[in-house]
Amino acid sequence: MSQDHQKTYVMKFGGSSLGGYKEILQSVSIVEKYAGHSNLIVVCSAMGDTTDHLLKAIDQAKKGDLEKARKTISEIRASIEKAIDKTVSDSSSKQKCRDWTAERFEEIDKVLLGISLLRDLSPRSLDYFLSFGEKLSTSIVEAALSSIGLKTKYLTGGEAGIFTDETFGSAEPVLKITNEKLKATLTPLIESDVIPVVTGYIAETLEGHEVITLGRGGSDYTATLIAAAIDAEEVLLWTDVDGIMSADPRIIHNARILEQISYLEAMEMSAFGAKAMQPRALEPCARKGIPVRIKNTFNPEVPGTLILSTDNMVNGVQTGVKAVGSLTNVGVVNISGTSIVGSPGTAVKIFEILKEHGVGILMMSQSVSENNVSLVIRRNELPKIVRALKKDLLMEDPETTRSTASSNTKFSKVDYEDDVSIVAVLGRGMIGTPGIAGRVFSTVAKQGINIRMIAQGSSEINISFVIKDKDRNKAVTALHEEFVERSLEDQPVLVSKAS
Amino acid sequence: MSQDHQKTYVMKFGGSSLGGYKEILQSVSIVEKYAGHSNLIVVCSAMGDTTDHLLKAIDQAKKGDLEKARKTISEIRASIEKAIDKTVSDSSSKQKCRDWTAERFEEIDKVLLGISLLRDLSPRSLDYFLSFGEKLSTSIVEAALSSIGLKTKYLTGGEAGIFTDETFGSAEPVLKITNEKLKATLTPLIESDVIPVVTGYIAETLEGHEVITLGRGGSDYTATLIAAAIDAEEVLLWTDVDGIMSADPRIIHNARILEQISYLEAMEMSAFGAKAMQPRALEPCARKGIPVRIKNTFNPEVPGTLILSTDNMVNGVQTGVKAVGSLTNVGVVNISGTSIVGSPGTAVKIFEILKEHGVGILMMSQSVSENNVSLVIRRNELPKIVRALKKDLLMEDPETTRSTASSNTKFSKVDYEDDVSIVAVLGRGMIGTPGIAGRVFSTVAKQGINIRMIAQGSSEINISFVIKDKDRNKAVTALHEEFVERSLEDQPVLVSKAS
Amino acid sequence: MSQDHQKTYVMKFGGSSLGGYKEILQSVSIVEKYAGHSNLIVVCSAMGDTTDHLLKAIDQAKKGDLEKARKTISEIRASIEKAIDKTVSDSSSKQKCRDWTAERFEEIDKVLLGISLLRDLSPRSLDYFLSFGEKLSTSIVEAALSSIGLKTKYLTGGEAGIFTDETFGSAEPVLKITNEKLKATLTPLIESDVIPVVTGYIAETLEGHEVITLGRGGSDYTATLIAAAIDAEEVLLWTDVDGIMSADPRIIHNARILEQISYLEAMEMSAFGAKAMQPRALEPCARKGIPVRIKNTFNPEVPGTLILSTDNMVNGVQTGVKAVGSLTNVGVVNISGTSIVGSPGTAVKIFEILKEHGVGILMMSQSVSENNVSLVIRRNELPKIVRALKKDLLMEDPETTRSTASSNTKFSKVDYEDDVSIVAVLGRGMIGTPGIAGRVFSTVAKQGINIRMIAQGSSEINISFVIKDKDRNKAVTALHEEFVERSLEDQPVLVSKAS
Amino acid sequence: MSQDHQKTYVMKFGGSSLGGYKEILQSVSIVEKYAGHSNLIVVCSAMGDTTDHLLKAIDQAKKGDLEKARKTISEIRASIEKAIDKTVSDSSSKQKCRDWTAERFEEIDKVLLGISLLRDLSPRSLDYFLSFGEKLSTSIVEAALSSIGLKTKYLTGGEAGIFTDETFGSAEPVLKITNEKLKATLTPLIESDVIPVVTGYIAETLEGHEVITLGRGGSDYTATLIAAAIDAEEVLLWTDVDGIMSADPRIIHNARILEQISYLEAMEMSAFGAKAMQPRALEPCARKGIPVRIKNTFNPEVPGTLILSTDNMVNGVQTGVKAVGSLTNVGVVNISGTSIVGSPGTAVKIFEILKEHGVGILMMSQSVSENNVSLVIRRNELPKIVRALKKDLLMEDPETTRSTASSNTKFSKVDYEDDVSIVAVLGRGMIGTPGIAGRVFSTVAKQGINIRMIAQGSSEINISFVIKDKDRNKAVTALHEEFVERSLEDQPVLVSKAS
Repeated sequence: MSQDHQKTYVMKFGGSSLGGYKEILQSVSIVEKYAGHSNLIVVCSAMGDTTDHLLKAIDQAKKGDLEKARKTISEIRASIEKAIDKTVSDSSSKQKCRDWTAERFEEIDKVLLGISLLRDLSPRSLDYFLSFGEKLSTSIVEAALSSIGLKTKYLTGGEAGIFTDETFGSAEPVLKITNEKLKATLTPLIESDVIPVVTGYIAETLEGHEVITLGRGGSDYTATLIAAAIDAEEVLLWTDVDGIMSADPRIIHNARILEQISYLEAMEMSAFGAKAMQPRALEPCARKGIPVRIKNTFNPEVPGTLILSTDNMVNGVQTGVKAVGSLTNVGVVNISGTSIVGSPGTAVKIFEILKEHGVGILMMSQSVSENNVSLVIRRNELPKIVRALKKDLLMEDPETTRSTASSNTKFSKVDYEDDVSIVAVLGRGMIGTPGIAGRVFSTVAKQGINIRMIAQGSSEINISFVIKDKDRNKAVTALHEEFVERSLEDQPVLVSKAS
Repeated sequence: MSQDHQKTYVMKFGGSSLGGYKEILQSVSIVEKYAGHSNLIVVCSAMGDTTDHLLKAIDQAKKGDLEKARKTISEIRASIEKAIDKTVSDSSSKQKCRDWTAERFEEIDKVLLGISLLRDLSPRSLDYFLSFGEKLSTSIVEAALSSIGLKTKYLTGGEAGIFTDETFGSAEPVLKITNEKLKATLTPLIESDVIPVVTGYIAETLEGHEVITLGRGGSDYTATLIAAAIDAEEVLLWTDVDGIMSADPRIIHNARILEQISYLEAMEMSAFGAKAMQPRALEPCARKGIPVRIKNTFNPEVPGTLILSTDNMVNGVQTGVKAVGSLTNVGVVNISGTSIVGSPGTAVKIFEILKEHGVGILMMSQSVSENNVSLVIRRNELPKIVRALKKDLLMEDPETTRSTASSNTKFSKVDYEDDVSIVAVLGRGMIGTPGIAGRVFSTVAKQGINIRMIAQGSSEINISFVIKDKDRNKAVTALHEEFVERSLEDQPVLVSKAS
Repeated sequence: MSQDHQKTYVMKFGGSSLGGYKEILQSVSIVEKYAGHSNLIVVCSAMGDTTDHLLKAIDQAKKGDLEKARKTISEIRASIEKAIDKTVSDSSSKQKCRDWTAERFEEIDKVLLGISLLRDLSPRSLDYFLSFGEKLSTSIVEAALSSIGLKTKYLTGGEAGIFTDETFGSAEPVLKITNEKLKATLTPLIESDVIPVVTGYIAETLEGHEVITLGRGGSDYTATLIAAAIDAEEVLLWTDVDGIMSADPRIIHNARILEQISYLEAMEMSAFGAKAMQPRALEPCARKGIPVRIKNTFNPEVPGTLILSTDNMVNGVQTGVKAVGSLTNVGVVNISGTSIVGSPGTAVKIFEILKEHGVGILMMSQSVSENNVSLVIRRNELPKIVRALKKDLLMEDPETTRSTASSNTKFSKVDYEDDVSIVAVLGRGMIGTPGIAGRVFSTVAKQGINIRMIAQGSSEINISFVIKDKDRNKAVTALHEEFVERSLEDQPVLVSKAS
Repeated sequence: MSQDHQKTYVMKFGGSSLGGYKEILQSVSIVEKYAGHSNLIVVCSAMGDTTDHLLKAIDQAKKGDLEKARKTISEIRASIEKAIDKTVSDSSSKQKCRDWTAERFEEIDKVLLGISLLRDLSPRSLDYFLSFGEKLSTSIVEAALSSIGLKTKYLTGGEAGIFTDETFGSAEPVLKITNEKLKATLTPLIESDVIPVVTGYIAETLEGHEVITLGRGGSDYTATLIAAAIDAEEVLLWTDVDGIMSADPRIIHNARILEQISYLEAMEMSAFGAKAMQPRALEPCARKGIPVRIKNTFNPEVPGTLILSTDNMVNGVQTGVKAVGSLTNVGVVNISGTSIVGSPGTAVKIFEILKEHGVGILMMSQSVSENNVSLVIRRNELPKIVRALKKDLLMEDPETTRSTASSNTKFSKVDYEDDVSIVAVLGRGMIGTPGIAGRVFSTVAKQGINIRMIAQGSSEINISFVIKDKDRNKAVTALHEEFVERSLEDQPVLVSKAS
């Protein structure tokens, strides 16, 4: 019987938390601990690098090398079987799980063969193929939990109630229906003390009832959608780091863990990778004010990073720089001409061109007297956008490079740089701290680094700037030293270790 | 007979150079000096603050106070008559000029009476009324030059050959026809040693042959259009300062004169007032590489500021910060929401709203993770734009403040600040000088000033940022000290005095 | 004290119903008759052709001929004074009314003088000037009603409560506020047995509280806005015809009166002039189901035409052709090219061009295999639209007629005809009557008339087609004979006489 | 050696002309006959219903029924092998052809297996799979021609030189490059008396060099692209009918053959199926004035239908109705509201919605007073468009059907009909023949058929109207009788028989 006063947690175990049988056992023991005194819903990513292996197998199959592809899959299979063997103690459960996964591998092999023959696959088939990663890992976790005596139920995202549009590869849930269905499916289970064990990342199309994936951050999104639908107490995202870090630890070895950050800060940091969440994935919880905690599966005593609304922050809101991020593989497009300033008609044209090509803007800057707009976009999208802007704004025929524009034309040039990176200094409340911009750019200047472009919006949560690729590490290191490490000396902070 | 080897200069005398009879005499003596050894075309602005007085009279007339309006005009008239009396020595010329201006004042009085009765006037009538400022001053200058023995011919802009579209208040010339007509009208005069004396600022509509004005910087534009049409040697813009200054001298008392700057730099500085030129007005010369020189009528030996292409610069191109500008009466609009990043569709919407309301963008910034776009626009346009953005993006009904948007909406907030200014640090080739951004923002920070927004495009000719109004002077002073005055110590520069 | 059980009518007297003193007396007697047993609100247009005279005076003044303009106004004044003399019997009222109108004429004279001096006037001044037409007529009617013992109150549209946006010349009411204000102002008056006498056509801007006009059909609109705001029983539009006619009586001498038509039919007929209402003006009543009756001031016993919802129609809904309309001064634009069919992108472009030039579409047709779209627009707008389409779709430089389009271009031709008229056959429920189209086009063909373009939408309330101007009367006559007169023979109808 | 004076013909054999070995032999004999006195390029479609069978096999494979799919393919294979056996007399050629096709079938089988495993295929894979139809038929024709002693060369479309964009399923050639390549590849062959035998329908992507198909009418397009590139004398499209017919012979048994029609007429007729050409496919020849002749492979003495420019027509241009077409599986969308007329802003919105959903407009009508726009689109696209219009124009939430629009909204209704057909009466120069519209609609009316919507553009080449599906055959029959058969009696025409 369910305890009415018990709190309900949604726990998502990421790929690294399910990396192999040892990791699964560790994750299982965490669930066991929480299950004693709270209601739980467990969401699972694919084990370890399963998804990468699946993609690799696809690639091999597309090149026609079925044998290699099968070998890649057989490696996945080996680790899956070992995981079943070591984590599912109950022998009947074990057999059932084995049989079930065997069937999945047969399905996988068929798809693989199909790809190798067609040398191509549709987005729909890709989603179907990738879904096996989560299906396999989730079934093992479910069986493992069951074999230690917990009441569990395996559910795919679609079975749980997540219904989406038809955008294969990055489906968007139909929120109202999804909320209702999730609640209708999961509440009775929780009330009967059953732990739903749900595949992350995968969902079901509303119209065709086909398997579809939620795209980047999809497992987190699964967890937060569920939490919002059932008004959970907290979402715990179990991962392999002690929390969101003040910088990419591959660049900054002594990057530190952030104890608590706001939803907005977390969304911003996501743009710079780290282990932070996709803005979209955070939205369901942000809307309802449900805290999200990043925890380390392998260091569960450490409190991790708590993402919450500023209203609920312990010890008040901390302001100032919290992290330093960076982003490479980007390029700058520079559009200049005497009359851009003050011409929203031109801006409309530029953005219609971007829209038509499905290209997102990473950074944008126009300063008052410059007659110039600069845009940062992904590097691989540079050529087509530069070509399109030249053609549509300058009326230059790309085949002949002959401009057909009359002398009345307001635009004179579209150029670009493709060897640049974005660096950003992040933290809510830089607003209350004069001098941060000065320190940021002085710090960068001391390294002899030249700045190509700057953007800081009036929300003042981050300052982004563009530098040459080769200067990236130097800039990030210097900024982290200046802002994060120095403040570390001044105030007692949680010392933690990134795994 | 014209000397074929003589160079042709287009000289524009600004309002302050024609402020009163003394100033006109000074301007006349300058023309006299050049006339000895070169071909000249003279372009005249309205005398002193005539245009302001005309506008004041309109305002008074619109309020129905005809007497006040007439008094305002009578002040203009008094100074016009005095100017004729003192500058046109030849008595027959004097009488002719007097009669002619008397007729003009009758026309003016009629319009004034009309306005006082209608309490309103159309853009067409406004242009007609304002045109008298240039007509009067130009006729005096023409008569004065004639009475010292120069062969001259008075021409309105339309008579000279400038034909435009129908946009009253800021007409745009129809370039091809204007070029042909200017050449056809002016070349024969020059070849007969006649100095055309042309009204600046005013032109003629191509279709209706009505008087129309060229808008801001219109007299400069008249001069550069003429220079480009006849391939003049140089344009001399006679004004009351020794050149373009490194900062607004009302804020920085020891602002310095810039010896030479590029067209592009001049265009940028124009956004920040100073005595620099409108980008549009500079374009005809920039296209043809004709140098434009800012000269002080009252200090004619000083070389002034030479605006030219970087190719032609003496002593090579100077890089680094050259000037500090600022702009007040602006406001920031801040649009934030989880999914702005990567949504060019949204950007299209925003700029369509701006376009529909005819609102120009002064500054724009979007940084990578912010989920936020910030725009700076003129302050008086803030309310309508904020209202429109709320309505069209957030689907908030401005009457009821009730949002009708579904929970799927991507935008969450549109807010604004209206007590801010833009400050900009300007100078070509900040690109080759790492550390400028750092020094800029450190300098500002040392003053305890908080920065709300930053934009620097990749052309790196200026860094613009937004601060509170109250911090403007402090910021400009500190930056000028740091960048301009300090560099002054290092290198020998032309010391000059702003009048 | 007001009778609670009394019904409330809104009566609008059009210009012809107030054409001179005799007409005003007739209108007053109508009000008197109704006032005995119902609550009334009276809305007045300008007397007779006052508005045309005002426009004529403006034109004369714009040409500078003040004397002519004053003479035009003095004619208006004479008839106004005569009207006061003959219709306002009470001598004190008469004097008051005389004094009041004298002041108005002084204002008029001032504006006129102003225009003659400026040779131009702004839309705001135009609205102000035109408003005198309604102010004068309404004040006379009010005084006349008062002098026969009725309790009355003169109100301008703004005083009554109609508040609008700032579109001078064709203001749009801010509905919510207008509804509230009208109710708040008028209800207490009615409840005190006072008859509000309201200027039609004119209103007040919400922001600046300036006089503004409602544009075409503005007096009708005033009446229907009031009726909808106070939930009136019926609107009576008093005019000089017995009702809406089956054809333009200038073409068809025995055109007949329509007894009852639906709101939708009335809206459609409005496009073809007649005495029908602007769709916009009918909307407030259509929304609330308040009937609108067209009555003849000079033949008040005739029931006139009742415009109402089909639900409320007496004897059921009549189907079939009811009227034949025509519209000249239009032109056809024809856009053809291999790939228009199936290219909504092209359609978007075409309509953006129309939108940008503020040009409305009167008729539009695209048939399946034609590779061709035909549009009918007002004739005077043809040149600019043809030029714009050639430039933007065909990329033909209108200055050089040289096409810069590559051979990939999908469009090949934009041409037009400017000597054409639209003819339309109108009537709800042509849907239930097969063969009407056949009869329409056979009838036209029998006259040897060639049809250039046809459009009939699926609502099937009208069939519109385009023919040469010279064939218009012939076509209208033949169609009216075929459809209206023939049906006249078959069924007993109200025989009435168009004045 | 090539005869310089010989004319060059491009011949395309359609699917029915290669339906089986007998048909191939017939086609081969036609080539043989022409080869004697002219240069030839032969373009082949897939044999008979091969493409349909390939699509059927895909469908079966997608459903997972590999066996059925293989059976479908084996049927194709049987007829292919029989065709080789019977048409390739030379035994070495026969063996070579057999071996080559066997390899193709192995490739086909692989793809089929792949599809059956993935249950889906990408557009790229689809194009690859479909390309086998043309490859197989073309290789047989080439071998057959070779074995009767003609010098031939097999070429795919890409090998011949047709290079396209990346739009799989309906690729568009990059014209300039394609023209150059086709000329460079084919001219030397022709000059060496070799007959290029080219696969119709398939081409190669410019960037990735992948197989791609040209979409509807692709084989015709292949032939016309080639003809235009090498300036051929004429294109002969060999098919199984005696020419383009005056109506669909499935509806009208005595439909007649049209002797000669203009390019424009042929383009229009294409919308109504028949055996006419896609406008796009006709364009290359229309641009160069190269005649295109539709010929019957099985009745080669009959001259067929000649498509040419009106300038080149024998016996002058024939005017009047030439054909009656119809189109079913369409639906009408009807958008009505008080203020559509005169609001191009609304039109822009409507067409942007259509564009966004990729929906083409088949027919469009707006008549002057209707406050109503009617659009005809494909029936299967109705639901999404109606939903989108309701949402975006009426602001009705499709989930709740609750309108969030304020009372200011201009639109009131979007409805539709889905049981309708388009019927069209076609023929150049209906312009010179008054009364056609009348006869058209009278004829339809006599059948008791009600017309829902009409559109005739001002080019007057067709009149299209919409009726209920059930009335289609009746309408087409009556119109054909009235216009085509009756005129048949009057004038001597070519009597011919549709196979």
